[in-house]
Amino acid sequence: MDDFIPSSRTTLKRIPKRGAYDRDTVYGILDEGFLCHVGFIVEGRPCVIPTAYGRVGDNLYLHGSAASRLLRSLGESVDVCVEVTLVDGIVLARSAFHHSMNYRSVVIFGNGGIVHESGEKLEALRAFSEHMIPGRWEDVREPSQNEMKATTVICLPLIEASAKIRTGPPLDEEQDYNLPVWAGEIPLSLKAGEPVADPALRAQIDPPSYARNYTRPTKALRLGLPSQSG
Amino acid sequence: MDDFIPSSRTTLKRIPKRGAYDRDTVYGILDEGFLCHVGFIVEGRPCVIPTAYGRVGDNLYLHGSAASRLLRSLGESVDVCVEVTLVDGIVLARSAFHHSMNYRSVVIFGNGGIVHESGEKLEALRAFSEHMIPGRWEDVREPSQNEMKATTVICLPLIEASAKIRTGPPLDEEQDYNLPVWAGEIPLSLKAGEPVADPALRAQIDPPSYARNYTRPTKALRLGLPSQSG
Repeated sequence: MDDFIPSSRTTLKRIPKRGAYDRDTVYGILDEGFLCHVGFIVEGRPCVIPTAYGRVGDNLYLHGSAASRLLRSLGESVDVCVEVTLVDGIVLARSAFHHSMNYRSVVIFGNGGIVHESGEKLEALRAFSEHMIPGRWEDVREPSQNEMKATTVICLPLIEASAKIRTGPPLDEEQDYNLPVWAGEIPLSLKAGEPVADPALRAQIDPPSYARNYTRPTKALRLGLPSQSG
Repeated sequence: MDDFIPSSRTTLKRIPKRGAYDRDTVYGILDEGFLCHVGFIVEGRPCVIPTAYGRVGDNLYLHGSAASRLLRSLGESVDVCVEVTLVDGIVLARSAFHHSMNYRSVVIFGNGGIVHESGEKLEALRAFSEHMIPGRWEDVREPSQNEMKATTVICLPLIEASAKIRTGPPLDEEQDYNLPVWAGEIPLSLKAGEPVADPALRAQIDPPSYARNYTRPTKALRLGLPSQSG
């Protein structure tokens, strides 16, 4: 599919060079992240819910209790803004004013609608699972008919979206570069620890490799992009 | 100040035992986190912005470009929902349906207003800096008059808020415990890497200890709470 067409809501105005509208960049961020924050309106007031998500092609899927709550009083579809943010580091400048963060974020605007067709619903749940823990779906009991019925799945077509990325060192005022102050970046990343077995687990089962060596899929986005200071 | 009084919006309905309304718990999560997602309404549609924050007593402060954007067309105050989410782990169940996350999150509803008084504004900026990197403020050049003018600071009083916490192992269906499937938790945490110096840095400046040993302040919340499965 073609790249995203910048809309009035997805066009970066303040520092345009930080914006990206190509699907590779946007999907790379969506695929590395797994937690999104969904904004919607309830009785005229803003509401934000954190939840997991999955992506299949040009659709984003939400499910479970968050999806239920989203649609509790909103009917078949809901106007949402979805944000995914990956924090790559804290940027320390010589002046308080120019401190910043390095990050990659995606914003998506659109209407999320309930998925009714059972084939698409199961496919979404599989994508959801594979997004979070690749390989897990094959190992576990698939959803029963009752569990499928109890699960609300929302599909949000990826039509109006953009990425925002900051990389690189701080950008200080010219005269501040002479200050005797350390400046640079503290890199931040997600770290997976040793798997902790369920106390109810049968003793002879070892954690699978996807639990022992858990990582998120990282595209070379951090390194491939030119430094965008400021 | 007294603990939060659960409102219709902050009361957990689906799994009430996961909710917490005491300021110690809520502030512990706010102090460990540093990234929030702010939901607000623009021209009748939901919008979410990720941004850093600081806390001073019973006030949350937002600032910078996010604050500017929030208030660009909204005037002196803005109705917001602020979410802070700390992901502690992925919970692997024996059934696809019962997979979950362990997390600690805070939701705040309220009206954010512009801080005009310069004393409070400077105090908020200092809190902002100290929240992110304790000790940094003393080392850097403080904001100039022009920088202060160029900075929008929003104060959100912490009145309507609650925490939501999940800890512990998966909760599977009784009959699934016999499945030969590993179950448990993959712990996730934030990891700080070696500081990366600004290429423009004068060679003889070493990174300060707050950059070399960067951590977030962690209360014993994860360990102190009873397991809340499901």
